[in-house]
Amino acid sequence: MNLSNDWLGSRGTLLSKVGEFGLITQIRTLIDAETAKRGLDTEHVVIGIGDDAASLRPTPGFESLVTCDIQVSGRHFDPAWISPGSLGKRCATVNLSDIAAMGGIPRAAIVSLAIGPEPSVEDIEEIYRGMIDRFAEHKTVLVGGNVSGLGSGLIVDITLMGEVESGRAIRRDSAETGDLVWVTGSPGSARAGLEMLMAHGDSARQSKWSEITSAYLSPIPRVREGRALGESKAVSSMIDLSDGLTGDLHHLVEGRDVGILLREESLPIGDELMEAARELGCSAESLILGPSDDYELIFTAAPESAERAVLAVSAVSDVAVWPIGEVISGAPGSVLIEDANGNRHEAPAGGWNHISPQELGE
Amino acid sequence: MNLSNDWLGSRGTLLSKVGEFGLITQIRTLIDAETAKRGLDTEHVVIGIGDDAASLRPTPGFESLVTCDIQVSGRHFDPAWISPGSLGKRCATVNLSDIAAMGGIPRAAIVSLAIGPEPSVEDIEEIYRGMIDRFAEHKTVLVGGNVSGLGSGLIVDITLMGEVESGRAIRRDSAETGDLVWVTGSPGSARAGLEMLMAHGDSARQSKWSEITSAYLSPIPRVREGRALGESKAVSSMIDLSDGLTGDLHHLVEGRDVGILLREESLPIGDELMEAARELGCSAESLILGPSDDYELIFTAAPESAERAVLAVSAVSDVAVWPIGEVISGAPGSVLIEDANGNRHEAPAGGWNHISPQELGE
Repeated sequence: MNLSNDWLGSRGTLLSKVGEFGLITQIRTLIDAETAKRGLDTEHVVIGIGDDAASLRPTPGFESLVTCDIQVSGRHFDPAWISPGSLGKRCATVNLSDIAAMGGIPRAAIVSLAIGPEPSVEDIEEIYRGMIDRFAEHKTVLVGGNVSGLGSGLIVDITLMGEVESGRAIRRDSAETGDLVWVTGSPGSARAGLEMLMAHGDSARQSKWSEITSAYLSPIPRVREGRALGESKAVSSMIDLSDGLTGDLHHLVEGRDVGILLREESLPIGDELMEAARELGCSAESLILGPSDDYELIFTAAPESAERAVLAVSAVSDVAVWPIGEVISGAPGSVLIEDANGNRHEAPAGGWNHISPQELGE
Repeated sequence: MNLSNDWLGSRGTLLSKVGEFGLITQIRTLIDAETAKRGLDTEHVVIGIGDDAASLRPTPGFESLVTCDIQVSGRHFDPAWISPGSLGKRCATVNLSDIAAMGGIPRAAIVSLAIGPEPSVEDIEEIYRGMIDRFAEHKTVLVGGNVSGLGSGLIVDITLMGEVESGRAIRRDSAETGDLVWVTGSPGSARAGLEMLMAHGDSARQSKWSEITSAYLSPIPRVREGRALGESKAVSSMIDLSDGLTGDLHHLVEGRDVGILLREESLPIGDELMEAARELGCSAESLILGPSDDYELIFTAAPESAERAVLAVSAVSDVAVWPIGEVISGAPGSVLIEDANGNRHEAPAGGWNHISPQELGE
């Protein structure tokens, strides 16, 4: 694995030396070997890599979930901070998180790569190994994909298929007035990690900020937690935290006649986030409320079901679950933040924006 | 629609003006309106655009097919020659062709776009309209996707889901010795069209070469034909023609103990391809045998089943079907070309290569 500061442009076997079909053959061999090595269950796969399309065997009584996420160098990740293997894991996480947010079970993925002249064949192999590692943790196999050249940089676009019992996918637009709002883990950590990397460069990874930089570079998808919440039947809506806390809360209520009241004093701001905020010269609230892709889960549950939801998570996971507010009427499509004195203000609707002429983290 | 020579960089609403979420909202509105306008059947869609993942209802007794294809400006298409709407259609075709080659029924697609600063919002909308047009011809709906910025250029990555009766997907690696090899339509036309565009620029589109330039710019996926072949149960293997005739024939036999004998005199070289070859100063054989992405179908059938296969196609389509050779033993993994005198030579394994430092058409 190449851990240099900027592996896009690193030495190794040039892609042009092996060509498209050579690279595809190498990737296919690697995937077959890694899948076999891990003893991954392929009972859902009828036809895997190598045909015009892959074919999957649906589980009777289940729906098919599908999600995709495109990750572009310089927009979603910076090769100066993330190793090829971590990048692969991160790309897998982003998609696993979407299936988790539906209460589903991930099954199989296909990968499109567009590759500039900079990465080496070994870098590409490390990206695949990272993906396979992360997917394997959730019994998910790679069943296809394709590669292309690119002027410069690197693009990884993964499509992930999953399943959920028919009629039981947890939507994001179905919370009701009076439901309590919960979030898992430590939202805002990813943003703090990114800011720390921007302030201190790669050295932040090895410093006392390693935990928060990991939250940004190596987020863990809440697949077990999402599935447990789905099975609990205690949840009224769910979304993954990929834009930022207030941004994703807005997604829960946009276009609807309900809003969300967020209680500032309930926000899970840990010591580490406080300390990071001090170091960064910003408020911990701005880190936890603003753009941040933590891949935590936000869910809502009726008050009488909430305990069941929380117990479902704690039965499978050590990840904390925090009540942060409730679904309210009278503020359609809005997210209101209430401070300790009971004063309310409306949160802006922003989140990550990968189109505007901004760079990472702006 | 912008039909100028090079719409990447054309005037119109700047993407940065609407931002990621603005663009997503506009695309979503467009998809909803176009889907409703066409009265598209969405009975397979449980959850469409707008949630963490889409959810599809599988047909009992069917497998789920999935394929993806990434199209990169300057590699797979040149904005100087193809309008945004045609590009959208082409990207849909490339994926529909893969489901056709499995004998399947396309159902639903998701789209990832990475967009440089050049295209306008209107260009992007035209790309989506083109996709929706082509997908709608095959009752296929868009159920999700995502967009990202890009340094420059444009990338369209579509994932298409389809279905086929359990155990009935037609593989590419299952032809047997003695099977006859067939191809649909006019292979090589796409290559001739591309060469003509490279030689004469955009004017070739409006000239007497419009039919072959259309074969390159606006290929028609053989969905009905592939499905008819699947339903006929007369076919032993199938692949779509996306790399070139000999390249894709190699894919049918690579790693296997059979080969393919291609009869030069059986190649379907029409008058137009002959004339194009003369104009281009090359042989018609080089156009039909070499790299070309025609999105025709290549299939094999046992001699006693072949008539049934051919009749199945003619029952649903006017597209011609040509017998071009047979599956042989004694030449494992090879494609041999036999000339009129019975002399045989081995065809090179090449096809399109989108990785090497080559540009479109080289």
